[in-house]
Amino acid sequence: MATHNLLLLPGDGIGPEVMAEVKRLIEFFNKKGPNRFVYEEGLVGGASYDADKTSISDVTMEKAKAADAIIFGSVGGPKWADVPYEARPEAGLLRLRKDLDLYANLRPAVTYPALADASSLKRELVEGLDIMILRELTGGVYFGEPKTITDLGNGQKRAVDTQVYDTYEIERISRVAFELARKRNNKVTSMEKHNVMKSGVLWKEVVQQTHDREFKDVKLEHQLADSGGMQLVKNPKQFDVIVCDNLFGDMLSDIAAMLTGSLGMLASASLGEVDPKTKRRKAMYEPVHGSAPDIAGKGLANPIAMIASFGMALRYSFDMGAEADLIDKAIAATLDKGIRTADIATAGEKTVSTTEMGSAILAEM
Amino acid sequence: MATHNLLLLPGDGIGPEVMAEVKRLIEFFNKKGPNRFVYEEGLVGGASYDADKTSISDVTMEKAKAADAIIFGSVGGPKWADVPYEARPEAGLLRLRKDLDLYANLRPAVTYPALADASSLKRELVEGLDIMILRELTGGVYFGEPKTITDLGNGQKRAVDTQVYDTYEIERISRVAFELARKRNNKVTSMEKHNVMKSGVLWKEVVQQTHDREFKDVKLEHQLADSGGMQLVKNPKQFDVIVCDNLFGDMLSDIAAMLTGSLGMLASASLGEVDPKTKRRKAMYEPVHGSAPDIAGKGLANPIAMIASFGMALRYSFDMGAEADLIDKAIAATLDKGIRTADIATAGEKTVSTTEMGSAILAEM
Ligand SMILES: CC(C)[C@H](C(=O)O)[C@@H](O)C(=O)O
Ligand SMILES: CC(C)[C@H](C(=O)O)[C@@H](O)C(=O)O
Repeated sequence: MATHNLLLLPGDGIGPEVMAEVKRLIEFFNKKGPNRFVYEEGLVGGASYDADKTSISDVTMEKAKAADAIIFGSVGGPKWADVPYEARPEAGLLRLRKDLDLYANLRPAVTYPALADASSLKRELVEGLDIMILRELTGGVYFGEPKTITDLGNGQKRAVDTQVYDTYEIERISRVAFELARKRNNKVTSMEKHNVMKSGVLWKEVVQQTHDREFKDVKLEHQLADSGGMQLVKNPKQFDVIVCDNLFGDMLSDIAAMLTGSLGMLASASLGEVDPKTKRRKAMYEPVHGSAPDIAGKGLANPIAMIASFGMALRYSFDMGAEADLIDKAIAATLDKGIRTADIATAGEKTVSTTEMGSAILAEM
Repeated sequence: MATHNLLLLPGDGIGPEVMAEVKRLIEFFNKKGPNRFVYEEGLVGGASYDADKTSISDVTMEKAKAADAIIFGSVGGPKWADVPYEARPEAGLLRLRKDLDLYANLRPAVTYPALADASSLKRELVEGLDIMILRELTGGVYFGEPKTITDLGNGQKRAVDTQVYDTYEIERISRVAFELARKRNNKVTSMEKHNVMKSGVLWKEVVQQTHDREFKDVKLEHQLADSGGMQLVKNPKQFDVIVCDNLFGDMLSDIAAMLTGSLGMLASASLGEVDPKTKRRKAMYEPVHGSAPDIAGKGLANPIAMIASFGMALRYSFDMGAEADLIDKAIAATLDKGIRTADIATAGEKTVSTTEMGSAILAEM
């Protein structure tokens, strides 16, 4: 029925390999109908720098703005260690987040039953784990100005980064947190450092006010980010939705991902405001893992995080919850059968390639 | 022979209870000789606010500057949730760190053999763990200006925090890191976010330069703080000394402490520059745990972190390594005998009080 326009940005390293599996999924759903996906591809990160001396071109940015959703691979690698700072691979990713105002970064940390033993945590602490880290993605120290290095003379330099948060930025991410919690276990934990940072003071205050005004039915807790990080490692199942700023979210979501033992398996969605015309949120979907340059081009990469990210696109951008469930179940079933890429195999276990994993998942669908 | 002047700042919550055990240790060493400790006590945190409407008075600050070492308990608690921001309990601690220029915060994360099972991580990952988190303590977002909340009108506020690092600040903490590593396993891992923060760019550059100029014999690695945090949870034993900025150090040292299963057992030292007159570094010693208001005054607190912090004072301020070893061994022996405060007991185990734990450790000495 509907036609959805996707922009695929495979990026660097293993990005193109795992994106190839998304293309097969698109084919699958196009055959199945009734929705139809059409896609364009673009360059981002080091690949874009090599072609255009920028980590994302204005043309690609225009396509990103026009697309119904962006599917992003990964960027970066040692090859671009010496490119000018403003053109480093990560800059393309940061520009996409900022210019599309993708302020709500959803990072589900779930333990796949078949992989619970892969966690460094004791099995009982992570078995059945299902938490959602909600990270503010367009503010804070990532984008605040000034952001400078100044030469002071005498061999001295001064580096400055600025963390800025306005009330409305905290309010809108809080709303997403409470709305997510209502569909989950109805609990939000907000993390900041109000004992040290003014942005932490404002963060705590606005989250609390938003709660008291609009979401009194949801349970709200506040934790300092340092002890919250400890609690995450001590007893992750106490959490449902964790909401925090851009930098704490970067740290805490990586740690949460590691706990599941399923790193390289986890998906993310970055959502913006609802467009009044299309009634659709601007959105980008991206695996949590990086570009893994050490294994790039070898067919070793695990495509599950990328595939699950496409699943999130179906769920959050296209109202295709049933199809998203189909993907999630196919992933779980494939893992239950013992099919493993190298990153999730235990010593001695037989492993499959990126494409073989993709095929196995498709076969389950 | 020598007389050492200490300032004891018990602070709030369980601070006074655990500090009482330090006083018993002081008595012990004074009897033993030849060194003699004399001490004064002062107020800090909420206790100071209640007395003087400030979280540390100028008089106490003068005493802190004059002391050979400061022994600090803990500050904070819900009682002071509504005091003016500049007088909150933590402000006293931050002022001590800043005004005494205690820039090098040593946070050893060690697993006590008797407690390896208390970690949420699998035993084999944390058994024998001994890493040192070295946290820059007087710079970064903790102290940079501007640090403000501004009313923008229309119900909007703007919060700003500023992360500032100068070359010399990174250089001096790097030196401490490399010197520590030389006495340990000769490896330093520096963590920052150079892909996002200018302070991360300068951090990485200066650590590398300091290494190449003065410490080529020490192995140096750089990791991004988010994936470094993951690695810490995945496989902590890969690290020896981790050096990072104030905020990353706050998060990473708490997580490292949690891994050992010995939270409430871990000590820290905060060191400044060497005083040219006394040839001694300004120094403050402090347990990593907080004020635990929920159990304060009940004789339940574990004094081990506080006692071990006093041990660090002997080692780093007074060149009393043998005596510090004596304390560390007495702690280990006490734990080996199965003596437990409530926080480290497993269900059903018999527990002892704060004083009983102190006595048991003294008995081993
Ligand atoms: C690549 C990098 C800029 C990025 C970040 O710091 O946000 C990454 O770590 C992430 O978490 O998506
Ligand atoms: C109490 C607080 C100000 C302090 C900090 O953030 O530095 C504490 O968490 C610590 O790690 O010593």
